Amino acid sequence: MKMNLADRRSIRRYTDQPVPQERLEELLSLAFRASNTGNMQTYSVIVTRDKERKRALAPLHFNQPCVLSASVVLTFCVDFRRFSDWCLASDAQPGYDNFLSFYGATIDSMLVAQAFASLAEQEGWGLCFLGTTNYNAAGICDALHLPQLVFPVTTVTLGWPDELPELSDRLPAQGLIHLESYQEGDVKALYAAKEALPQMRRFVEENGKRTLAQVFTDVRYPKESNEAFSDALLSAIQRQGFHL
Amino acid sequence: MKMNLADRRSIRRYTDQPVPQERLEELLSLAFRASNTGNMQTYSVIVTRDKERKRALAPLHFNQPCVLSASVVLTFCVDFRRFSDWCLASDAQPGYDNFLSFYGATIDSMLVAQAFASLAEQEGWGLCFLGTTNYNAAGICDALHLPQLVFPVTTVTLGWPDELPELSDRLPAQGLIHLESYQEGDVKALYAAKEALPQMRRFVEENGKRTLAQVFTDVRYPKESNEAFSDALLSAIQRQGFHL
Repeated sequence: MKMNLADRRSIRRYTDQPVPQERLEELLSLAFRASNTGNMQTYSVIVTRDKERKRALAPLHFNQPCVLSASVVLTFCVDFRRFSDWCLASDAQPGYDNFLSFYGATIDSMLVAQAFASLAEQEGWGLCFLGTTNYNAAGICDALHLPQLVFPVTTVTLGWPDELPELSDRLPAQGLIHLESYQEGDVKALYAAKEALPQMRRFVEENGKRTLAQVFTDVRYPKESNEAFSDALLSAIQRQGFHL
Repeated sequence: MKMNLADRRSIRRYTDQPVPQERLEELLSLAFRASNTGNMQTYSVIVTRDKERKRALAPLHFNQPCVLSASVVLTFCVDFRRFSDWCLASDAQPGYDNFLSFYGATIDSMLVAQAFASLAEQEGWGLCFLGTTNYNAAGICDALHLPQLVFPVTTVTLGWPDELPELSDRLPAQGLIHLESYQEGDVKALYAAKEALPQMRRFVEENGKRTLAQVFTDVRYPKESNEAFSDALLSAIQRQGFHL
């Protein structure tokens, strides 16, 4: 099945069929046509196929099974290393070890990652973005031998789909689109349909909470955990050579 | 002309024909189907059509003419405000005023922005991403009345194309794809074809430099300027309520 955006879903279960390396590289090359700052192309993609290396990555992604079962794991990285090395080899003094450069390269890495995701889904592959990349960035740097000025932004597990999960819900688009300036809307009305979904009611009940929001604040993304991982993320960025 | 990734180029000149609001919202709604963290949808899009508001934005984007000539200017924003307001209205204590949440929402905003860009280009529209969003973020927050926990990540100028610029060059993809772990390659060889392009040689000459890299380090993106804008970006993030 080829997915378009309208019916896309994250795919976490894959068949044993491998994703061919040549076609993978063709689609990555196409994705590199995405827009980028100053045409500096300050990103890199690490392709993990080796089973041992997947085993090293898995705990860094909290042992999500898709890391091991995917044909390929792709780690999209900020990369100011290559550009800076080119500067040094060209009698030029690079000055890209700063947060502005890091953040701009994050944006460019994501343009490539989503451009690739659209192509891969049209190809019939299934994939899942792993936000856990930002939780254990330092460990991922070690596992993939990322040098200074290279930093993992997002991870995509990729393979041929072996499931067709339900489409996930979305908020009414009108609540996310603001005409001319930011408009504060009626937030309870905006979330009413989501809160009424049977799977959301079940989710609240299973977690022993009274409201859906409490599942997020108390169970899934609690403040203390966010703040501890936030400190780790900031340290990892600095360890890779970007100063704040 | 409908652009696919293979022949995409940034479009900075537009005809007078407007981009219809209804179709714009349809494509944004589709783009909101992109993957996102925990299905929290922590992003917003500000749609600028009003001429006065474009005039307020233009200097913040260093007066790039496309801001005024575009039918629509879209500012894609991190938005943890709506989600946090929902938590507060649901007897839940939000804890998302941290860098991890900010960075994750940046990633999700970019998934939406690139998903939208692909759809818009297939629709026959032309667009340009403006990296200047990160240079004058505080001013953009003021111009668009962005409240706490909302932050502008990237800007897209959008309209019907009135130009067909040359395709820009790209580095050989092999230099950006790393098998199993990061591989340091021969950087001079990787950049050789780019440096040999007639327009790049002209670029070096016009700027009175000896190497192409020096045009980047001395003219386009010099260290002192990067660092000053980096400080401004970090301040703007904190001013919007995300602590580091």
